[in-house]
Amino acid sequence: MAGGDPVSDELACLECDKAKDECGVFGIYGPGKNVSRITYFGLHALQHRGEESSGVAVAGGKIEVHKGMGLVTEVFDDDILNRLQGDIGIGHVRYSMKSNSVINAQPQVFRYPWGMVALAYNGNLTNSTDLMEDLSRKGVIFQSISNTEIMANLLARHYEGDIEEALRKVTCEIQGAYSLVVMTQNKLIGLRDPFGIRPLCLGDLDGSFVLASESCALNTVGAEFIRNISPGEMVAIDGGGLKSTSLTNNNRQAPCVFEYVYLARPDSTIDDINVNIARFGFGKQLAQENKVDADVVVGVPYSGTTAALGYAQERGLPFMEGLIKNRYVGRTFIQPSQKLRDLRVRLKLNPVKEILEGKSIVMVDDSIVRGTTSRKIVKMVREAGARKVHFVVSCPPIAHPCYYGIKTTSRDELIASRRNVEEIRHHIGADSLYYLSLRGMLEVLDLPEEKVCAACFTGKYPIDVSGCRACDNKSFSEKGC
Amino acid sequence: MAGGDPVSDELACLECDKAKDECGVFGIYGPGKNVSRITYFGLHALQHRGEESSGVAVAGGKIEVHKGMGLVTEVFDDDILNRLQGDIGIGHVRYSMKSNSVINAQPQVFRYPWGMVALAYNGNLTNSTDLMEDLSRKGVIFQSISNTEIMANLLARHYEGDIEEALRKVTCEIQGAYSLVVMTQNKLIGLRDPFGIRPLCLGDLDGSFVLASESCALNTVGAEFIRNISPGEMVAIDGGGLKSTSLTNNNRQAPCVFEYVYLARPDSTIDDINVNIARFGFGKQLAQENKVDADVVVGVPYSGTTAALGYAQERGLPFMEGLIKNRYVGRTFIQPSQKLRDLRVRLKLNPVKEILEGKSIVMVDDSIVRGTTSRKIVKMVREAGARKVHFVVSCPPIAHPCYYGIKTTSRDELIASRRNVEEIRHHIGADSLYYLSLRGMLEVLDLPEEKVCAACFTGKYPIDVSGCRACDNKSFSEKGC
Amino acid sequence: MAGGDPVSDELACLECDKAKDECGVFGIYGPGKNVSRITYFGLHALQHRGEESSGVAVAGGKIEVHKGMGLVTEVFDDDILNRLQGDIGIGHVRYSMKSNSVINAQPQVFRYPWGMVALAYNGNLTNSTDLMEDLSRKGVIFQSISNTEIMANLLARHYEGDIEEALRKVTCEIQGAYSLVVMTQNKLIGLRDPFGIRPLCLGDLDGSFVLASESCALNTVGAEFIRNISPGEMVAIDGGGLKSTSLTNNNRQAPCVFEYVYLARPDSTIDDINVNIARFGFGKQLAQENKVDADVVVGVPYSGTTAALGYAQERGLPFMEGLIKNRYVGRTFIQPSQKLRDLRVRLKLNPVKEILEGKSIVMVDDSIVRGTTSRKIVKMVREAGARKVHFVVSCPPIAHPCYYGIKTTSRDELIASRRNVEEIRHHIGADSLYYLSLRGMLEVLDLPEEKVCAACFTGKYPIDVSGCRACDNKSFSEKGC
Amino acid sequence: MAGGDPVSDELACLECDKAKDECGVFGIYGPGKNVSRITYFGLHALQHRGEESSGVAVAGGKIEVHKGMGLVTEVFDDDILNRLQGDIGIGHVRYSMKSNSVINAQPQVFRYPWGMVALAYNGNLTNSTDLMEDLSRKGVIFQSISNTEIMANLLARHYEGDIEEALRKVTCEIQGAYSLVVMTQNKLIGLRDPFGIRPLCLGDLDGSFVLASESCALNTVGAEFIRNISPGEMVAIDGGGLKSTSLTNNNRQAPCVFEYVYLARPDSTIDDINVNIARFGFGKQLAQENKVDADVVVGVPYSGTTAALGYAQERGLPFMEGLIKNRYVGRTFIQPSQKLRDLRVRLKLNPVKEILEGKSIVMVDDSIVRGTTSRKIVKMVREAGARKVHFVVSCPPIAHPCYYGIKTTSRDELIASRRNVEEIRHHIGADSLYYLSLRGMLEVLDLPEEKVCAACFTGKYPIDVSGCRACDNKSFSEKGC
Repeated sequence: MAGGDPVSDELACLECDKAKDECGVFGIYGPGKNVSRITYFGLHALQHRGEESSGVAVAGGKIEVHKGMGLVTEVFDDDILNRLQGDIGIGHVRYSMKSNSVINAQPQVFRYPWGMVALAYNGNLTNSTDLMEDLSRKGVIFQSISNTEIMANLLARHYEGDIEEALRKVTCEIQGAYSLVVMTQNKLIGLRDPFGIRPLCLGDLDGSFVLASESCALNTVGAEFIRNISPGEMVAIDGGGLKSTSLTNNNRQAPCVFEYVYLARPDSTIDDINVNIARFGFGKQLAQENKVDADVVVGVPYSGTTAALGYAQERGLPFMEGLIKNRYVGRTFIQPSQKLRDLRVRLKLNPVKEILEGKSIVMVDDSIVRGTTSRKIVKMVREAGARKVHFVVSCPPIAHPCYYGIKTTSRDELIASRRNVEEIRHHIGADSLYYLSLRGMLEVLDLPEEKVCAACFTGKYPIDVSGCRACDNKSFSEKGC
Repeated sequence: MAGGDPVSDELACLECDKAKDECGVFGIYGPGKNVSRITYFGLHALQHRGEESSGVAVAGGKIEVHKGMGLVTEVFDDDILNRLQGDIGIGHVRYSMKSNSVINAQPQVFRYPWGMVALAYNGNLTNSTDLMEDLSRKGVIFQSISNTEIMANLLARHYEGDIEEALRKVTCEIQGAYSLVVMTQNKLIGLRDPFGIRPLCLGDLDGSFVLASESCALNTVGAEFIRNISPGEMVAIDGGGLKSTSLTNNNRQAPCVFEYVYLARPDSTIDDINVNIARFGFGKQLAQENKVDADVVVGVPYSGTTAALGYAQERGLPFMEGLIKNRYVGRTFIQPSQKLRDLRVRLKLNPVKEILEGKSIVMVDDSIVRGTTSRKIVKMVREAGARKVHFVVSCPPIAHPCYYGIKTTSRDELIASRRNVEEIRHHIGADSLYYLSLRGMLEVLDLPEEKVCAACFTGKYPIDVSGCRACDNKSFSEKGC
Repeated sequence: MAGGDPVSDELACLECDKAKDECGVFGIYGPGKNVSRITYFGLHALQHRGEESSGVAVAGGKIEVHKGMGLVTEVFDDDILNRLQGDIGIGHVRYSMKSNSVINAQPQVFRYPWGMVALAYNGNLTNSTDLMEDLSRKGVIFQSISNTEIMANLLARHYEGDIEEALRKVTCEIQGAYSLVVMTQNKLIGLRDPFGIRPLCLGDLDGSFVLASESCALNTVGAEFIRNISPGEMVAIDGGGLKSTSLTNNNRQAPCVFEYVYLARPDSTIDDINVNIARFGFGKQLAQENKVDADVVVGVPYSGTTAALGYAQERGLPFMEGLIKNRYVGRTFIQPSQKLRDLRVRLKLNPVKEILEGKSIVMVDDSIVRGTTSRKIVKMVREAGARKVHFVVSCPPIAHPCYYGIKTTSRDELIASRRNVEEIRHHIGADSLYYLSLRGMLEVLDLPEEKVCAACFTGKYPIDVSGCRACDNKSFSEKGC
Repeated sequence: MAGGDPVSDELACLECDKAKDECGVFGIYGPGKNVSRITYFGLHALQHRGEESSGVAVAGGKIEVHKGMGLVTEVFDDDILNRLQGDIGIGHVRYSMKSNSVINAQPQVFRYPWGMVALAYNGNLTNSTDLMEDLSRKGVIFQSISNTEIMANLLARHYEGDIEEALRKVTCEIQGAYSLVVMTQNKLIGLRDPFGIRPLCLGDLDGSFVLASESCALNTVGAEFIRNISPGEMVAIDGGGLKSTSLTNNNRQAPCVFEYVYLARPDSTIDDINVNIARFGFGKQLAQENKVDADVVVGVPYSGTTAALGYAQERGLPFMEGLIKNRYVGRTFIQPSQKLRDLRVRLKLNPVKEILEGKSIVMVDDSIVRGTTSRKIVKMVREAGARKVHFVVSCPPIAHPCYYGIKTTSRDELIASRRNVEEIRHHIGADSLYYLSLRGMLEVLDLPEEKVCAACFTGKYPIDVSGCRACDNKSFSEKGC
């Protein structure tokens, strides 16, 4: 699709005015099972964590990999899956800004003197620039800008015959968020950073261990959820079973709260909290904090729906589907011409006049990033006859970029980094605007602030990000898993 | 996709265990406008009425057409749309059983001694066999089995210089359901059968007339809704404006109620009734008719959600999203192997254990065709821990095939044609099963039975279908628009 | 490929500055054989007769067809061929001006009251306009402008229970060139027009009869050549064997001589004359007629090579490959920008300086249509250092368009229709220019002028073309098989 | 395409029973020129040197690359080329055994502390195993098995601020054949190994320097040939012009003679010898060495044609095109079933019975690798009626594998490594078999044995290959450029 021109940017914005997970990972140690196919189905369940590239690697003697740009259903077919025979499999889906960058697709496979290793990464290293510079000085060359290549090179430097020991040493040098699955020719390893920023969980599929970013992938392949990988835990799975090691005695844990707000699939349960129930709770909490008079509660589909349901229930107001999303909206799409530009919003969302006309509306969305889409929605809803539009958001204002593996946008484009709530209300044209309080959010989750990462709301980064800030003038997302 | 084998059939079933519209039509008379692009966007809004083929024809001097297998976003690109220059455009999306049948894709273009005509058809002729036989005897040969070719040949026989007069005469010979858009080299004509079975409406886009199967397509292209085309009405649009003719003095009108139940997009308003509001009303009515004790109301996404919301509101029960649909489920999909067959349902729907566990559930779905999917869902919900599963359906039992352009399935496969409600309940494994009453449904719509077609529930066909019954042993859907 | 702009036109010209066959046909009556696959391989051998669309129809009970735009290797895959099961198969390849016109691809299948018929056609009807008008008056409508639809409609009118009798009657009404394969649900029929203008031959594949435009297709599928279908002969093949009927007592036969000059594959033998040997003979004859002094003989690859070899042998001059063709030149190709336009010729042909430098060259090409390419070649050869360039052409000047199924170009674009030989020589920039005499050509073929069609050279059309001349202002090729 | 099964192997064999170049390279230093497009057209001219993957990298500030599996016409389109803006461009085409190995496609881009470098490589390192082991011990990890990654890592170790100096040092460590183009962010470098085994030449395109594996690519883009890069020469081109450095005072030069026999395009001139003229000379020399009685000389198209012409001229025998190649034979092709297996040869080559019948034939081919194809051809020619088949080959027996970048096959599969000429004659079924003598070949080239590499004939490898021999039990071609 053409980039750059204002028309397509504005359209694209409807799609991308959301923060995005950068990756999903999956792994299975399953001798005798069809590991490539199970990995494929696992990735299919994690597709929302990355639509741009998909990859599967299997180990059976040596390691084979297939990856490409696109959804798993586009990158794989029966022939390819049949060729990928092995006992262990890992997979990766990825969101990426760069078109055609199949070179950066994962899993990435590396050849060491002692064997092959495949890595699939979710997260972001905050000291990657330092690490790259240091490694470069020592003669390492990079074929891409990726955390994976950094990890792989550190691994080479620390390996002395024991992959787990080497990984342990690597974790002493790296800083940032990482939920990793690593596959050697005979072992599957899962690893979660000491703060536990990105999720990772463990399941059991008929006696075989399975690792996945979210529990929905366990359910999809028919595995039982066993437990979450703990922050700072490494599990190594081979013919001898599973061995768990704690890499850290870190007390400050910081799982990302934004997974609950928007990123994760609603049927996933992350660190013992179900995502759908959390979202419903955010909506209820919102309703306790914000009691505007209204006739009807409407959610922005699909991500605002659950909080809207909670809000409506708590307030005793009717929830109605006042905005309908065209479910055929996809990635490849012909741009309307300038003359037709007014139809751009309506290609994706259409208001139901009969529901909105003459009504005072509470419009619930999960978050506001740039504010562009929110403004369009408010305008559309007013044109459909709404008398009042009260906009409520089921998280606090996002005023700080994420450096831990979420693609938001540059700081300057985060509307809440430059404007206060009243200014944002004015900008999006709502009659009122209310954000969920952080306190309220944490109450719903029943977690103290010290047990989560809420840096995108508070700016209090649990892991030092000064190295990342240096590149903050650019969109941060150039780097990434 | 491979056909035939039991594995894929069962999977396919999850997709297809719904009745389906066979077509959507769109037309614009818009000199000076980009008619091909507007038609493209209109079809995009009607894509749910047919995912198998898409086509656009334009008249500008002569008539040009482009069509192909697939979604509009797959069949068209900028180059193709730019080549289709003209003053008038019509478009068509189609559901079809037959793979690769681009030959039957519409619009179809016919060359007469007096000029070219393009036809896009939604509906089904009930006397097509007689008409084909009669025409064949008169020397007509058919390149496909299509209502369109029959219409085109009848048109040839009745044309004496006036296309509208010829169409009027054709309507005297044909029986059945038809919402047609017809394009000559300088005229756009819309036509709805005397019973008004399939919908068709008229809009105004900055002074240009637009025709569409559903009003959501008018909204999407930025047109104002003007009115519905009346049953038995023909509108002819050219440089001189719009001329309306009534083709019938039929008093029995019979718009299809199933459009409200499942087929139409919720943001469409058909014959002055908004679809979303109708579905919400069906849910409320259901709740009045069926008052089981329950903890929570869950809809089968996406089509059962609205009625579930209405049900929950009416009963004062909480509505929760207890089933999550994977939004990446598409048409091309690798089949799980036999060993993995249990995961087939979960690839598309995943229960939220935290919501369902230990609960008594009211599960709302819009309709039951074969019962296969319902049974899988009930099983899945029970496995997720539901204590009770009360299944309620927001329409009466579908016991009779549609002969008016809806692909259901053969009569034998309609579970309600062979089993009573208790038997169906037993089959799907629910604790109770309740269908909305026809009386209740009509009350919600505020229409007498004489003003709708509810034949799929009642077997009272407003138009004679004895000719169709003859081929009833086969799946009826071989013929079609 | 983009049309219209001068850049691409000029490039296209290198490709298309040749007359082209419009179709190739193939058929097999082979119960128990894999007829779809055999037809596929047969079409592959006939691909030079049509690169734009490919199609295969099989009869096994009913008739199934698959066709699409592109080469047979692009249109078919294993799955598609496996689905096409039957006892009889026919196939077609087609050259077409129109992009995306899959609607006109063949075989075309027609449904009659008495069964289905598939037709594959090579040639052109000269009274098609009259026939279309007449049929239209009788109520026939056309979905395309094709000889096949005309034939199919005439067949409907004459059928009284006997397909062969009906075809016989059809041949009384049609005029022009036609080599047809016709397939009913249980019979394969081959038919060649009374003048025998386009070729058709019969083979035996392990007891099954095979029909093909050229004998190279028989060889390729492993069939033995039996004989040519005679002008005016119809062969009908079914379970009872082969029955031959003569449809005419026409004495004037007129097989197209241009098949020998350029159209047919060199390994084919048409009407008992091998094409390669004919071309070699044309070259020898040229050498007898034209004895310029020269150092070396060079053919324009690939079509001028054989005549060049004959010329060189006859004159005792060395034949050298002074022009090399890039064998990766295909149909999809990025256009050089204006700045790079000089490289357009060289992308396809590259002179070998070491062979040409300082030499007096006899450059042999098979024919000149517009002269555009010839001029470029002469220029390129001179730039490579040739001292003299004597251009000799292994057929007489093409001064008259073909109306019998060959796409030449409009009369105005045929350089020999507007200029004499000296003017053409001047235009292409050669030191001398010599065309083979018609007398010489006929001597090589050992045929009297009354036994061939040489109308493109002489303007003496064996079948009346006044009806075609009417549309002569347009490119004739709009119509066609 | 299906691998492994005997049917497809045998078919594949017709295609692959030839030695194959593994790569072609191209480069241009052209500020102000459309370097991506020029590189594209240059690669198109070199496509015969590698059909499996294609890539273009450009430097304009930073380095961008696009590459993929397939021909250049498949991998690139206008949009992609337009995105690749820069002042310098390099490109690569590659032959590879491995399907889907886009990871190994070139150019490969590496990031160093001091900038980015892109490499395109033709040849093969003979000490790669040692180098990889050594580098691995020093902590280097490899993402593939490629000479390019080895080179890139050595470069990192030797770089101290001067890329040319670093490359010079790298050449002291590596052994083997390499013709390299290297691009930094502001410089284009060409490099040919001290023995000059693979070709590389320099041209001038309107003031810009161009590098290419063969001169045909210079001609195609409109560049003037300047000179060959000398064995052991490095040319560095930047804004200051071209600087040449000699890396060696090696006296033993060893350009590959097999480029003249088969690999290079006939219109290329390599190291001052035109390929077409060399092949013609081989044919003449063959005729002097081998004077069998025969009626006609036939070449195996296309690669045997030129030598056949030379043979025929020298002997005064007629050259005839007795075998015709189907020019649509491509890479994707449906396999004949077992029942149709006899047609496998004829899909590609068809004999002209009229030319061969009753004749004593001299059949000229350029080389014999496994002998499989030759046997099929002899059989086919005999079945077409040839009385005698004398097989002559325009190079000596290939008895030794190439370790310098040519994919032959494993030693065991080289028929001449296991059998003597009489045994080969018997195997292929010819009446006689004659190979060109090495002495004769060198006479035609006017080069002493000490000035060429003829190791595939003689086993005298100019560069030590003991390291390669170790992996000789496998097909050598797993490694490669």
